[in-house]
Amino acid sequence: MTRERESLGFATLDHDRMLRQGFPEVIYGAGKTVEQIVAIAERLAEHDGGFLATRVAEEASSALAKRFHRVELNRVARTAYLPGAEPPPTGRGTILIVTAGTSDLPVAEEAAVTASAMGNAVARVNDVGVAGIHRILAQKDALMSAAIVIVIAGMDGALASVVGGLVRVPVIAVPTSVGYGAAFDGLAPLLTMLNSCAAGVTVVNIDNGFGAAAAASRINHA
Amino acid sequence: MTRERESLGFATLDHDRMLRQGFPEVIYGAGKTVEQIVAIAERLAEHDGGFLATRVAEEASSALAKRFHRVELNRVARTAYLPGAEPPPTGRGTILIVTAGTSDLPVAEEAAVTASAMGNAVARVNDVGVAGIHRILAQKDALMSAAIVIVIAGMDGALASVVGGLVRVPVIAVPTSVGYGAAFDGLAPLLTMLNSCAAGVTVVNIDNGFGAAAAASRINHA
Amino acid sequence: MTRERESLGFATLDHDRMLRQGFPEVIYGAGKTVEQIVAIAERLAEHDGGFLATRVAEEASSALAKRFHRVELNRVARTAYLPGAEPPPTGRGTILIVTAGTSDLPVAEEAAVTASAMGNAVARVNDVGVAGIHRILAQKDALMSAAIVIVIAGMDGALASVVGGLVRVPVIAVPTSVGYGAAFDGLAPLLTMLNSCAAGVTVVNIDNGFGAAAAASRINHA
Amino acid sequence: MTRERESLGFATLDHDRMLRQGFPEVIYGAGKTVEQIVAIAERLAEHDGGFLATRVAEEASSALAKRFHRVELNRVARTAYLPGAEPPPTGRGTILIVTAGTSDLPVAEEAAVTASAMGNAVARVNDVGVAGIHRILAQKDALMSAAIVIVIAGMDGALASVVGGLVRVPVIAVPTSVGYGAAFDGLAPLLTMLNSCAAGVTVVNIDNGFGAAAAASRINHA
Amino acid sequence: MTRERESLGFATLDHDRMLRQGFPEVIYGAGKTVEQIVAIAERLAEHDGGFLATRVAEEASSALAKRFHRVELNRVARTAYLPGAEPPPTGRGTILIVTAGTSDLPVAEEAAVTASAMGNAVARVNDVGVAGIHRILAQKDALMSAAIVIVIAGMDGALASVVGGLVRVPVIAVPTSVGYGAAFDGLAPLLTMLNSCAAGVTVVNIDNGFGAAAAASRINHA
Amino acid sequence: MTRERESLGFATLDHDRMLRQGFPEVIYGAGKTVEQIVAIAERLAEHDGGFLATRVAEEASSALAKRFHRVELNRVARTAYLPGAEPPPTGRGTILIVTAGTSDLPVAEEAAVTASAMGNAVARVNDVGVAGIHRILAQKDALMSAAIVIVIAGMDGALASVVGGLVRVPVIAVPTSVGYGAAFDGLAPLLTMLNSCAAGVTVVNIDNGFGAAAAASRINHA
Amino acid sequence: MTRERESLGFATLDHDRMLRQGFPEVIYGAGKTVEQIVAIAERLAEHDGGFLATRVAEEASSALAKRFHRVELNRVARTAYLPGAEPPPTGRGTILIVTAGTSDLPVAEEAAVTASAMGNAVARVNDVGVAGIHRILAQKDALMSAAIVIVIAGMDGALASVVGGLVRVPVIAVPTSVGYGAAFDGLAPLLTMLNSCAAGVTVVNIDNGFGAAAAASRINHA
Amino acid sequence: MTRERESLGFATLDHDRMLRQGFPEVIYGAGKTVEQIVAIAERLAEHDGGFLATRVAEEASSALAKRFHRVELNRVARTAYLPGAEPPPTGRGTILIVTAGTSDLPVAEEAAVTASAMGNAVARVNDVGVAGIHRILAQKDALMSAAIVIVIAGMDGALASVVGGLVRVPVIAVPTSVGYGAAFDGLAPLLTMLNSCAAGVTVVNIDNGFGAAAAASRINHA
Repeated sequence: MTRERESLGFATLDHDRMLRQGFPEVIYGAGKTVEQIVAIAERLAEHDGGFLATRVAEEASSALAKRFHRVELNRVARTAYLPGAEPPPTGRGTILIVTAGTSDLPVAEEAAVTASAMGNAVARVNDVGVAGIHRILAQKDALMSAAIVIVIAGMDGALASVVGGLVRVPVIAVPTSVGYGAAFDGLAPLLTMLNSCAAGVTVVNIDNGFGAAAAASRINHA
Repeated sequence: MTRERESLGFATLDHDRMLRQGFPEVIYGAGKTVEQIVAIAERLAEHDGGFLATRVAEEASSALAKRFHRVELNRVARTAYLPGAEPPPTGRGTILIVTAGTSDLPVAEEAAVTASAMGNAVARVNDVGVAGIHRILAQKDALMSAAIVIVIAGMDGALASVVGGLVRVPVIAVPTSVGYGAAFDGLAPLLTMLNSCAAGVTVVNIDNGFGAAAAASRINHA
Repeated sequence: MTRERESLGFATLDHDRMLRQGFPEVIYGAGKTVEQIVAIAERLAEHDGGFLATRVAEEASSALAKRFHRVELNRVARTAYLPGAEPPPTGRGTILIVTAGTSDLPVAEEAAVTASAMGNAVARVNDVGVAGIHRILAQKDALMSAAIVIVIAGMDGALASVVGGLVRVPVIAVPTSVGYGAAFDGLAPLLTMLNSCAAGVTVVNIDNGFGAAAAASRINHA
Repeated sequence: MTRERESLGFATLDHDRMLRQGFPEVIYGAGKTVEQIVAIAERLAEHDGGFLATRVAEEASSALAKRFHRVELNRVARTAYLPGAEPPPTGRGTILIVTAGTSDLPVAEEAAVTASAMGNAVARVNDVGVAGIHRILAQKDALMSAAIVIVIAGMDGALASVVGGLVRVPVIAVPTSVGYGAAFDGLAPLLTMLNSCAAGVTVVNIDNGFGAAAAASRINHA
Repeated sequence: MTRERESLGFATLDHDRMLRQGFPEVIYGAGKTVEQIVAIAERLAEHDGGFLATRVAEEASSALAKRFHRVELNRVARTAYLPGAEPPPTGRGTILIVTAGTSDLPVAEEAAVTASAMGNAVARVNDVGVAGIHRILAQKDALMSAAIVIVIAGMDGALASVVGGLVRVPVIAVPTSVGYGAAFDGLAPLLTMLNSCAAGVTVVNIDNGFGAAAAASRINHA
Repeated sequence: MTRERESLGFATLDHDRMLRQGFPEVIYGAGKTVEQIVAIAERLAEHDGGFLATRVAEEASSALAKRFHRVELNRVARTAYLPGAEPPPTGRGTILIVTAGTSDLPVAEEAAVTASAMGNAVARVNDVGVAGIHRILAQKDALMSAAIVIVIAGMDGALASVVGGLVRVPVIAVPTSVGYGAAFDGLAPLLTMLNSCAAGVTVVNIDNGFGAAAAASRINHA
Repeated sequence: MTRERESLGFATLDHDRMLRQGFPEVIYGAGKTVEQIVAIAERLAEHDGGFLATRVAEEASSALAKRFHRVELNRVARTAYLPGAEPPPTGRGTILIVTAGTSDLPVAEEAAVTASAMGNAVARVNDVGVAGIHRILAQKDALMSAAIVIVIAGMDGALASVVGGLVRVPVIAVPTSVGYGAAFDGLAPLLTMLNSCAAGVTVVNIDNGFGAAAAASRINHA
Repeated sequence: MTRERESLGFATLDHDRMLRQGFPEVIYGAGKTVEQIVAIAERLAEHDGGFLATRVAEEASSALAKRFHRVELNRVARTAYLPGAEPPPTGRGTILIVTAGTSDLPVAEEAAVTASAMGNAVARVNDVGVAGIHRILAQKDALMSAAIVIVIAGMDGALASVVGGLVRVPVIAVPTSVGYGAAFDGLAPLLTMLNSCAAGVTVVNIDNGFGAAAAASRINHA
């Protein structure tokens, strides 16, 4: 099992990941210095022609933009994306990203950028939380034409259960840290979603738009 | 402020409560011996003509039934109720008790017995959790004719937010310990309900059907 | 069930809420950009003649004040309120807002602004925590003339139980994040209030003055 | 949106679910009386020709076996399954169920029964936790031929991340309550799995073999 | 610092404790076998003429009663007490033990037995929780004549703050596991008491009547 | 029960507290504006000749110093103290304040300032945590001559149990937020101290030097 | 990397572990059926000549004793041990197992059985908790002659820090679930030990006597 | 037991620690003022010829560098190290420090600086988390030549179990606060590591690189 890896001292690049998982390693920007992020990006760009970085703070974004002219920054999503030499294989259907509220947008953007970068068509429905249940019910067409639905919600996180009960396709729920007090930085919607009364809803970490998109892309490329 | 109270040694009866709050003290059976429960019930019955006891285990129920022939036992609700000499004042409207699932019934029964004992008309809608959203939407008439709605749900607790967004009357949410794992004995729906995106939903303790009914009765007798 | 809603892309306005719930959608400012807040406010103002925004940071407040000359800012409450074309229907009685300490004032202000905006008379009693029990006992007149009482307290949150035992009208308890250490940002008074030994006290989220007022207004307009 | 539902008083059957989600409502046995379980099973059997019940205790299993001679009981999984009139549509590929330890078997059995009932081919690999990493590496063939992998693990829950990094197909992680002390009844592997460093692993509730299989079946029938 | 100790293999007796702390080692019965409890009791009785054992289950109580004819069992408190050869020095004043509810009695009994055994006069006031605030206010005489007050309460634990504000003597608060749901086995009153708005209330572990009495006795013997 | 109180609108002063509890109300500075703190201080100074304020931020300290020339600021303790017209009654003995580490000093200072202001002699022993057990054992004289010991410790909080076992006088334990990671902002030493194996150690809130001193002063003035 | 493993269907034996880690796989009895335990034991005995099983309930112990006549049962430790064909290599020094209280004995027994089975000399000191600090100080000889110290304590867990500061050899701390209330089933001593102010104390799971012994044996065989 | 200690008022130096534990007291910089850190450093330098300080913020680092010209600052590790007059005794083997990701580097640096200062040879392997399992498998030589392995990982913390199963030498696991959401500042990997399915992995506090190195050095100097 000899596998391709490259050591930068502070990082061991998993160049084998493209073969193994269909998409190269993604740079998780939090806790890394600007220098480390740029160095890893350079090696990935050299190896794969491009890269995707998430949780990239302002300073690192600027450094990447300076170094890679074609890089696409999304400051709401805090992502930096340099498309690779050849586009990733296209997924079967459309990933629908649904948010409960406007404040969930940064997580939805991270999911959208990631899903697109991984070769998926993306559709969006925003701000359809269950306090006005007709808002999601009115989106029947969007829901029915989706191959996978990502539901993003903070506070009570109730939207995931409602959507989970409306569609038969896979539903991935993303709790967000939107809210205050007993939302406990996303714990409340996380627990809600893990206890969804709709059978077959799965969950990712709080604010993990990236992970939801990666999971959806796995499904969409099966 | 001289107020009526009576000491049994192990208990200090708050006979003043009828005047102050419109309903006599209620016996909380958990953690009390059968002898204590019967003794308190006797004093209340003597003073008020009747009593309500909640969280009454089987043995205490039997003892109360033996001592008070007219007592009404509800073994699902774990209540024992002896109607007082004169009925409580009647509340303005109907309290609608809605459950998300069949497993929530014991809590709903406790709420129904309490609300009735306190002089309120009660209506019921059962097993209309949000995984089949049409079930609650089909109950529009019941929802619209209620003066107050008590929503009882375990697991994701999402029903409270949906109902809270459908009606304009007061909504009291009761999380239940129904569920397992990350439901954490009712913590999950408790947090869901405290974070309801529907404005003006209030919450009581996990499995507290009694408290929800008492709160609803306060509203209904205003 | 065709219902009125309007999409701004990042937001789906629930214009139907006025009809359904007696008060238009309220803007929750946290996690929204200034641009988003102003855009939503414009649409609501256009549709309803006014709006209420909560959790509005300084910058957004200024932007709203610039755009809407009649807007009423309350910097303690962090609210911005533009009265609508016609006043909301008036509630039956007075909502009494009681705080345990001076540090609870921002939450009380949010409750007061919200309750007023929703058409309710508001009275206030401040800094009457139970460590000096005579302070709340001395407020008997205010307590007895209230239609609903909102009790706002941090730290031990004990005031809610005392007030709950003194009055027969509905009591809504708001835990606050006032305190330190084992107050755990409001968890301590939240648990206290959920476990109130006074029957029929209901609870809203930590620091949720808005929710308490919305709940009180539901009761007051029944 | 008139949808088929049937009320038993204590339960509202969602007969529409077959159409909406491709599989009829499943009976969650916990917290229901034997009588309730049998009554719901009868209605489902009448409507769909069969039923699936999970979390069925011994007494309820026996009652179901007495009432429905063809019912298939799995006492490890605590399931009761009566195949419907016609088999469910067959899923695309094989769902591989992997456990970290022998003690995880009840959850794996629940997943296997559910997945089969929903029309999926199932394969199994047991007791390949990461403390002996060669055990999972030796299962390359099984991993590579799976359409979806369900990873079931208690204690450290680490197997999900390892498997997530080895395959490119969807991976659904199920934390179990196996363990003691700081496993906190499954909280430890739940957090491990939510924080998986393998991109695109999704998670369901602790011990929720049913939910994992339902999610996998959604994917497999897309 | 040569100090007296004696080893039984499974236990190391701290015979020095009488000299150091004014009261001999107390046997904590939980988690010990009947044989271990009896063996330790024998050595203490031999050394000090008597012993106090807490958290003693029924079987151990019977064994102790059989072995020591003068032993005083209190089955509510779950204590076994054999008075020593000479009575402990008498404390300065009276320790007043106050409970919020009848269900708190076992903890109060443990405190009373311990305080008496350690040489203190004990007075009792029961079932005066704050939901009927006049009940504690009516006990002014008892409160004013106490040297130390132990307040025992479950659920909201609010009584400690009220008493702490009424008296100037030391107040020791004992949270109890009375309650359910969000009482979280005593966590709620524990947090309430730790956050008491009355200055100078101190707290011991949940249900720790023994510890409260030991602390009060330290104060009373100063 | 007519008691003296004074309303400032945002605050209700409990002037009766001096009579009831032997020390006037203390200003808790956190969450109050500078204006509120100064206004309350003025009323207290007018009524009692002085005041004590804790948790006073830099800006409020400066404002108080400007308004009250005699005020004593302690910036480590974050206190402001204006001695009253006549000194408080002197306590019986010496309160010994012991810290486990140098980082616990701010809490110890708050305790020392409070204890002194309330009329108690104070002694200090610093940085004698149990990792070098001889450091506390060497303080036998200080321990033996104390009337009450306040033990202040973060991290493992183990010092409280050791001291509790060495002395027979009352021991009050103060957990601090010193530490990181699994210290969880003081939760670790809080739990340690609540579970002290030394009988009769009582506990106050995390970082609550004020409360420990107030409790000690209650004991010292009995 | 072809490694030896054997599949029993429900279990995959890691026969390679002896080579890799110096001791064969150990049977964790919890959550396994009696049949599974016996079957795994048979395979291990066949392969290695013996086995060690922990967390073995009464019924499984009896079954093992019936099947393997030489098996050594320790009912306090809940272990079953069949010595292998040849003794394990002997460790360098003595592992000293120290308990804070008698109630910690079952965990200490599990550690002692495991350490012995793995080829280590074991010494024991029991019931030397810090409330009587002279008890552990008197054990200087035992402490100084140990190669590794395992400290086992519940409640405050403080003994680990004291021992950690007295010796220079490795100290492994085992929190136990001994205690009640805010001990939270071992969480309190777990946090204490993780925050030990003695540098270089390491920690294993609550009640994990087995793990502590395995870690000590790794050190002792280095 | 007369032992050497020195009091600075705010600190009590444990000069005896060198003799007792083989390494002098280490300065924990957090929560200390710059003046306190420099003063303690001066005394240690005077007594031992050098010192090690951890958690030293920028300002304190600069002050130490100014005062001690030979001091070695490591700004990633936040350490300041002044080698003593004579080097510490050299440990037996090499301590291998392994990180799961680049973001874990600050903790690894703290461990490396500490281990070196204590006289140990250190080797490093970085960024070999289990999502690309071949990365750690490729490090077999490094793993096999280590005397002790320190595994540092945030998020899922799974690397500790994998390494624990690969080697027979002692493994010390350090959870880090790397991650977000349900990583809960390091709680997730902490629980993972405490529940490691690899027998004999021990754990230190979150981000406690210092403690892991001190524990490893104890082992290495045995």
